[in-house]
Order: sequence, then structure tokens, then C-alpha cells
Amino acid sequence: MGDPAGISPELTARGVMDTDVRAAARLIVIGDARILDEGARVAGLALDTQTVRTETDALAAASGERPVLVDLGHLALEDVRRGEATLAGGTFATENFRRALAMAKAGTVEAVCFTPFNKAANRQAYPGYDDENRFVCDVIGWQGSAREFNVLESIWNARVTSHIPLSAVASTITKDLILHELELTGQCLRQAGIAKPRVAVAALNPHAGDGGNFGREEIEVIEPAVEAAKAKGFDVVGPYPADTVYLRAPKEGCHAVLTMYHDQGQIAMKLMGFDRGVTMLGGLPFPICTPAHGTAYDIAGKGIANIGATRAALLLAARMAERARVGADAAA
Amino acid sequence: MGDPAGISPELTARGVMDTDVRAAARLIVIGDARILDEGARVAGLALDTQTVRTETDALAAASGERPVLVDLGHLALEDVRRGEATLAGGTFATENFRRALAMAKAGTVEAVCFTPFNKAANRQAYPGYDDENRFVCDVIGWQGSAREFNVLESIWNARVTSHIPLSAVASTITKDLILHELELTGQCLRQAGIAKPRVAVAALNPHAGDGGNFGREEIEVIEPAVEAAKAKGFDVVGPYPADTVYLRAPKEGCHAVLTMYHDQGQIAMKLMGFDRGVTMLGGLPFPICTPAHGTAYDIAGKGIANIGATRAALLLAARMAERARVGADAAA
Repeated sequence: MGDPAGISPELTARGVMDTDVRAAARLIVIGDARILDEGARVAGLALDTQTVRTETDALAAASGERPVLVDLGHLALEDVRRGEATLAGGTFATENFRRALAMAKAGTVEAVCFTPFNKAANRQAYPGYDDENRFVCDVIGWQGSAREFNVLESIWNARVTSHIPLSAVASTITKDLILHELELTGQCLRQAGIAKPRVAVAALNPHAGDGGNFGREEIEVIEPAVEAAKAKGFDVVGPYPADTVYLRAPKEGCHAVLTMYHDQGQIAMKLMGFDRGVTMLGGLPFPICTPAHGTAYDIAGKGIANIGATRAALLLAARMAERARVGADAAA
Repeated sequence: MGDPAGISPELTARGVMDTDVRAAARLIVIGDARILDEGARVAGLALDTQTVRTETDALAAASGERPVLVDLGHLALEDVRRGEATLAGGTFATENFRRALAMAKAGTVEAVCFTPFNKAANRQAYPGYDDENRFVCDVIGWQGSAREFNVLESIWNARVTSHIPLSAVASTITKDLILHELELTGQCLRQAGIAKPRVAVAALNPHAGDGGNFGREEIEVIEPAVEAAKAKGFDVVGPYPADTVYLRAPKEGCHAVLTMYHDQGQIAMKLMGFDRGVTMLGGLPFPICTPAHGTAYDIAGKGIANIGATRAALLLAARMAERARVGADAAA
């Protein structure tokens, strides 16, 4: 369960009562019964969850039909101030997340989802809270590279650089880095059930550099990376001019676009309705999925929150967990 | 009349027969009667144009109800190879354009429109043909700054930098340059009939620099430019993060977005259907408008070309010409 002051409680309630989600996964919710009950009340739903007090009990109960709630009893309803980022809310959300991550790290669960966090609240609870990516690596002690993917039904977005100044982008992208990101993207797409992923690569400069007239990174960096990826057997196209890559990629059967910098992908994804999409943290030992939208403090408690993105996040996590299980069985 | 090998002939025929366009402007077409007739045949239209041989005769005839064709007799139908960029096609298109520009420069017409050009064909005819902007400045001997605006019904796009490497963008944008572009954008919007233009400014860095964490251009360059524009009485908002500025601008009553670099605006405009939009060259002594799409060689001659963007270009040019006339009358 994410931040209790926004729409997370009602989204959690809707998620555990969703028929398709329940068919796809055995669900363990970590939070507080009072907060989940309030979410169900707002959503107008009657919960049929089993309530336990510990993760160990949850694992025993999860073999049944009904979702299991681990009731940590750590947040009273009267301590939730709807629409406000508080230490209590951040403590609730980060503790739930931390426990879910610990279970996944131990291998007792196969994927983690969270309903929206409020970064300001989480920072009050955990001052080192930079973003989810950083928090997860801290908590599970992960040294490898984790990457944020933006997932819409039609297309995924991955990026070579993210939260750096635009002036640093051109000097940061290298052939090796692009190749690495292409491999990671392909790996995550396969984990999501796409057997033969095809990835379109965005150019850096306007008109893809216009043959070197407006920048040479396409010729010197991006094209060599694409060629190297192809030589390794990856199905990669591009580099395509950034202003048409999102129009071309779906037509050319691509499952993802790899962009060179943050806004190159985000401008397109947000216009295409990414607020209804899923954010997936990939490259970790287990998938982590969450709706791309935020806590929506303005509509919290009104019962009008759309479950679409949360549902998509839960189903993607379930699909990725299943793929990993099938892969592990095949390898065994 | 633009390139004869694509959809320009049929678009020209549809444009001159469009009721709203005819009500908005007195039209003079420059081209060849044989090419226009073929366009009308493809479009399934019966033309009612008056045909003359010179611009002088055209001006005399243009006081009547019917559009006037200046038939230069410079391209035979058998010399058009549909779907092919040729010297003959480029010569036809650049000569038509050159004559229209000369009339506008002389003040005998108030605006110029062209149906799509093929750059490769135009380059064969005029080796210095870089783009329309450059050609126009060459032909009319214009030393001032001309700027390309992308116009959708809902929003305009203007940009501070255009065809330069992405690595050069951060060092190119200055407070003065942004302020200048804001003034030019406001001026062109007023010329288009928007009495009180409001412009949203895009940030440069991801999350608008996140308070200086991912770049300081927002703090040191863009915000000071916005403040300077406000101090001069311009209605300007921003800088807004580039990945939401196109979602926010219409909601906040903005008429245009000023972007810092080419793809920042083009990614959004193309996703929003800019191929159905209008490109306007502003900052010149007269407006020049054209549909944003190209020659569409693949559907030339099939009679299925959509007139929408050409119609919008003609109506925008007419509106801007009328505003200029009203302004000149008021000043007299």
C-alpha cells in the first residue's frame, strides 16, 4: 500500500477485488487493515481478504483463493490527513514497501507492486529517498543497474540518460552505454512475455543529424551501437528522428523505443496518455511495477479514481513473474 | 503552385474552389493552366478561374469574384513525372514561388501561400535551396530574422533554436535570444488575430532542472527571460517541464509554446497531428503559409489528398493579411 493520504487505499482495494488480477496472481497486501477498509469503503467494495499479522503467516495463507492482507497495525485512520504529505504517511508507505522488497529478495514472492507514493512524504520518513530506484537499491543492497521503463499498452519507453542536464547528454551517451541499454531493454521485454522484442532507437539531433549537418553523434555513436546490437542478434531499428520515432515504432512492429534523454521519451509518452500507463523498474532480480500516475490528492476519497493503470501494473508484474518461473523451470 | 509531381496540383484546385477560402481572400494562382486543369480533373472539380498571362493582368482581374490564374505556360503535362523529384518540377515550383514573393514584396498582394514543395526538386532548380526560409530571404533580399512557426488549431509552436546539434543548444540559448523570440511570437500571434497572446515557455532540462539539480539554465537564463518579457507587458508563463508543457498550455489559455530546441516541440506537434497543421514563416514583411505535410508522392493523382491543411494555410494567410490591413488603416 502506497501513500495513505491519496488514492492509494481505494486503488489497493479495487486491485485486490479485480477478477483478472486475482486470476493472474496470488496477492499479498502489506499495510494496515484500517486503511484498506477505508479504501474499500471509498471504492464501494466488500473485501474478502484474509487478514494475518506476519509475512510468514501470509505465505501460508496465500495458497488459498483469497488475497491476504498483512496487517501491520501501524497506521490509524485518524492519523491520515487526506491530501497531505506527512511523516506518518511516508513511514507507512516506505515500511510497506521495505517489507515487500524483503520478501522478494528472499524469493518468497516473485514480484512487487506499489500504489502511488508521495515523494515528499517518503523523504520525511527516509531522508535518503531520492526516487524509487535509489530506495530499492539501498534496501535490497543491489549493486547492479536498475532502469525505469515506461510502459503503455502499445509501446515501452527506455532511456539511455535520465536525470542529467540536457547539456551533458551528448557527452554521456556512448556506444557501450547504448548497447548495454538495448540489451537490458530486450531482456525486460522478454521477461514481460515478448518472445522476440524489437526496439526502435531514437536519434539525438534534429532530423537525426541530417547526415552530419546538425551533429555527428548518430554517425559516430548511435549507428555503431545499433550495428553492434544487430551483430549480437538483437532486432533493432534506427536511429530514427526523435519527432517521428513514436509514430513509426508501432507501425514497424517495435515493442519499445530507446530514447537518448529524458524528455525525448517523456514528451511523447505523456501525450500518448502515459498517466494511464505503468512504470516498471527493470534489471533487478525481480520486477517492480506501479501505476505511472501519482497520489492524486485532489480526488482522494471521492471514489472516482481510475483503476486502469494499477490494474495494468499488477497484471504486468504477474506476467513477468510467471515468465521468470517458466524460465527457471526450463533451466532446471 | 508547388511541386507538380505530388498532390500540389489537386490541392491547388481544391483550394481555389473552396467556398470559405474564396470568401476570405481574393486569390491569384501562379502556375500553368495545364497543371491546374489536371489537378482539377484529379480532384473531380470544375474550375471557374479566370486565366491571364501576367501579374499585372492578374491584379486587374482579381477585383472580380473568381480566382485568377497567372498561366505562365512553363510546364507541359507530359513533362511531369508523377511521384518523381525532377529539375522540371523544381523549376516550376521555384519560379511560381519567386513570382508570388515578388508581388508580395511590391505590396500588390498581402500574403503568400504555397502547396507542398519537394526539396530535392527545388535544389535541382536552385542549388542554394536550403529550406523555404533561406530561399525567401535570398529572393526578397531580407536581412531581418524570419522564423518558422508550426500552427495547429489548438496551439502554435515556436522555437528558440532549430537546426543545430543538441550538444549546442544549452550554450546557444541566451536571455536576449529567448526574449527576442517571445516578442516575435507575440507579434505573429497578434498578426493572426489573437489580440492578447499568451505564451508558455518550455524548460530546457528534465523536470525543468529540478531546482538546479539537473541543470541551471532555467534559473540563470530562461526564468530571467520570462521575467523580462513580463516586465515588458507580455503574457508569458513558465518555464514548464517540456514533458507536460503541451498538456498544460491549452488548459492555461496559452496560444503558443516556445520551445528551446527543435525536437522538444516537434515530438509533441507531430504526435498531436501536426501533419494536418500549417507552417507559417513569420517575422517577414508579409506572412507565408503552407500545409505542414509534404508532396505525398505515394498518393498523387488518386484524388484522395486531404485539403484540410492547405485550407487552414490559406485561411490563416487571409486572416493575417486582413489584420495587417486593419492595422495599416488604423495607423493611417
